[in-house]
Amino acid sequence: MTYHPSWRGVTFHDVVPAGVLSARAFLEQCLERIAAREHIVQAFVAIDERGARAAADAASKRRAEGRALSPIDGMPVAIKDLIETANMPTQMGCRAYDGNWPKRDSAMVQALREAGAIILAKAVTTELGMSEPGPTTNPWNTARTPGGSSSGSAAAVAAGFVPVAIGTQVAGSIIRPAAYCGNWALKPTQGGVHRGERQGTSQSTAGPHANSAQDAWLVAREISRRVGGDPGTPGLLGPLSTPDPVRPVRLGVLRTECWPRIDGASQMAFIQYVKSLPAEVVFPEDDPALAALETAVADAMAIGTKITAFENRWAFRNLARDKLSRRMIARLDASAAWVQEDYIAAMELRAAMRAAQAALAPRYDALLALACPGPAPFWNPNAPNADDNPRPTGDPSCNAATSALGCPAVTVPVMAVAGMPVGVQVIGQPHQDAKAMGIARWMHGAAPHLVA
Amino acid sequence: MTYHPSWRGVTFHDVVPAGVLSARAFLEQCLERIAAREHIVQAFVAIDERGARAAADAASKRRAEGRALSPIDGMPVAIKDLIETANMPTQMGCRAYDGNWPKRDSAMVQALREAGAIILAKAVTTELGMSEPGPTTNPWNTARTPGGSSSGSAAAVAAGFVPVAIGTQVAGSIIRPAAYCGNWALKPTQGGVHRGERQGTSQSTAGPHANSAQDAWLVAREISRRVGGDPGTPGLLGPLSTPDPVRPVRLGVLRTECWPRIDGASQMAFIQYVKSLPAEVVFPEDDPALAALETAVADAMAIGTKITAFENRWAFRNLARDKLSRRMIARLDASAAWVQEDYIAAMELRAAMRAAQAALAPRYDALLALACPGPAPFWNPNAPNADDNPRPTGDPSCNAATSALGCPAVTVPVMAVAGMPVGVQVIGQPHQDAKAMGIARWMHGAAPHLVA
Repeated sequence: MTYHPSWRGVTFHDVVPAGVLSARAFLEQCLERIAAREHIVQAFVAIDERGARAAADAASKRRAEGRALSPIDGMPVAIKDLIETANMPTQMGCRAYDGNWPKRDSAMVQALREAGAIILAKAVTTELGMSEPGPTTNPWNTARTPGGSSSGSAAAVAAGFVPVAIGTQVAGSIIRPAAYCGNWALKPTQGGVHRGERQGTSQSTAGPHANSAQDAWLVAREISRRVGGDPGTPGLLGPLSTPDPVRPVRLGVLRTECWPRIDGASQMAFIQYVKSLPAEVVFPEDDPALAALETAVADAMAIGTKITAFENRWAFRNLARDKLSRRMIARLDASAAWVQEDYIAAMELRAAMRAAQAALAPRYDALLALACPGPAPFWNPNAPNADDNPRPTGDPSCNAATSALGCPAVTVPVMAVAGMPVGVQVIGQPHQDAKAMGIARWMHGAAPHLVA
Repeated sequence: MTYHPSWRGVTFHDVVPAGVLSARAFLEQCLERIAAREHIVQAFVAIDERGARAAADAASKRRAEGRALSPIDGMPVAIKDLIETANMPTQMGCRAYDGNWPKRDSAMVQALREAGAIILAKAVTTELGMSEPGPTTNPWNTARTPGGSSSGSAAAVAAGFVPVAIGTQVAGSIIRPAAYCGNWALKPTQGGVHRGERQGTSQSTAGPHANSAQDAWLVAREISRRVGGDPGTPGLLGPLSTPDPVRPVRLGVLRTECWPRIDGASQMAFIQYVKSLPAEVVFPEDDPALAALETAVADAMAIGTKITAFENRWAFRNLARDKLSRRMIARLDASAAWVQEDYIAAMELRAAMRAAQAALAPRYDALLALACPGPAPFWNPNAPNADDNPRPTGDPSCNAATSALGCPAVTVPVMAVAGMPVGVQVIGQPHQDAKAMGIARWMHGAAPHLVA
């Protein structure tokens, strides 16, 4: 299918709460789309149809009686298979976790259930959220990757299997697959959506993929309202309803370290698109402070990778090596000699990046960058681990900066290049997720979407 | 046995590294003491004698060949049973975890093994580290509690079963049981010793109990050197060797919120002891800034309890209620209605406490407080859950302040009251663990120990 940015996909907020469909009828339509295309998309590792139907009936009854638990009562949601769910196994795309089923709900899953959401499916992740891909294909072109590590979450939303799927991001795993698949997505401020049992790394986040800003925001906010964010953080802040569109005065542009590797058509489309926005748009060459941030984040990918590899090392060492991919073993071995001083040095570089962003707060309402480096690349889904390509789900490096910065980023589906989605991300200051979402909504409606 | 502060207990640093005993001979002496008294002390839930002997032989060989992995190569260590160990189950003093054996090493355990330490035993914890006690008795008087939640860790060190045992603290569970048992202990700066899979709460720490400052420091530092601290923190900083004694210029005294509940003999002993120190010792009534900290931490127990209860809620809700104690269910139910705003409000109060301590940095080298509210109370070890006493392991509230402050604290065994140990804690600024330890060592030698 050729993608066009006018595509709207499957949304919940304007359907079930509005009484257009009951929660059960909405679920059945999702299940029909799954039955028709899941054998091609391969977004899920587990589906709990029976539990979902029971939960949908309960939600339908509550809504009919005017007792909805929240705006997302009755919403079917898929959960990335890194995150624990009581009603389905959690196997993390890794043979070391085959059959793992701890029968626990992660914090966000518990909050979703309390809000009435339906935990329908577990979505394919790359191995432990790292490089080794699963079988999922891009719904817009099955010869291309949907991105990763939130491969199944991105594809499930794009295929209309669920209106919202939870993904996680360490380098670029929410923002990038959403951009490759034509979704909205919110990567919240570090810790904004409670990561539950997954607190082991200092720059990873959980956040929603959706077909609308509203569904993404409502899910994230209903979670933080109930369980807060990560321990020691305030959690996602902002209104309970979706922030209204906000017109910015000034926007800054970041090219990020991946720019030289992006195809010319996507580069030109991005520049043309941001120049078409009805606001002041500043490029790094025109503002030394913005250029200083661009310079500070120029090694964000390598620094974030080093920090995360050190943090993950002890947990990964507990796994049997013969159940890990070659790519994973290479990652593990690369960090074997690192000590506390190496980690502290990398964290100091990260702190410098954050200071460079903070310095821009008085001058810019938000920053803009490509959310993915052009259209999703082609890959061979039948040969995982067949080669040592370190990035079989695409290059995450245009997202490495926002991951290291710990700031909010919103993927907005506003461009098509070569018939595939290419998203633009709106980047806010930490804890200003609501403002970033408001500017993202403004952007989506402020200028014509671009087809290159 | 009547306790006297001149008691020195079992130490490792001046025995095995000095060649007085081989690692294997040292272990055998530990095992003999365990065989003689464990049936009374009941410090352990699991002992891996076979694995320990093999590890001790390997360490003996390395040391004989001059290839010691670290200063703690060959040291037998006990691990509080909240923390995962590959060679023994992790049952958390909770029936919901009966038989739980994930065969994983927590970060600190992995680091200890890499340093050559011997993971000998799992030490009794109260239920999930909360109030419901286990069977452990105080080695100095078996009719008294050893304190909690690190009951087994404290008792095992006092009984000479191991030179070092790892404990954890949320309110007062490292510092207080150590003080009740006559141990040294280090509660590091928040996150200083990597908590591994236990990242779910924002004011809990892991740290060593020991019979000497040296063994405590070396264990904590060898861990942080290898795996750092909690993700996103620098981890315990300071020299690899134990900090030398440091004479302070000025010390401040904190009475803390528990003061009105402390027996008069212990109050008088503490005041007499701190006045005997050869340094300027300031009381809150003589310095408004110090009084401001005393006021800021006056509700530390309630605030810390609220923060932790909110953070623990989702994880505890996953456990079957019929496998929890009445005390635990009461805790869980108390937090049922709390939402994000309640949590944020409590965290703001905690931030104010931290600001009040930071304001003292230019004026005080350290603060001093009682580490426990007098001698360990009597209790009935044969009737757990027989009453609803909320503090069956003693009152943690003189430790609530340092837990909320996230700062280092060192228990120093310098007093006896009524034939039982009563420790004094040295409290440092965050990340100045080494300075706090240096002042603790100075204090231990600077004035006569006090027997009241």
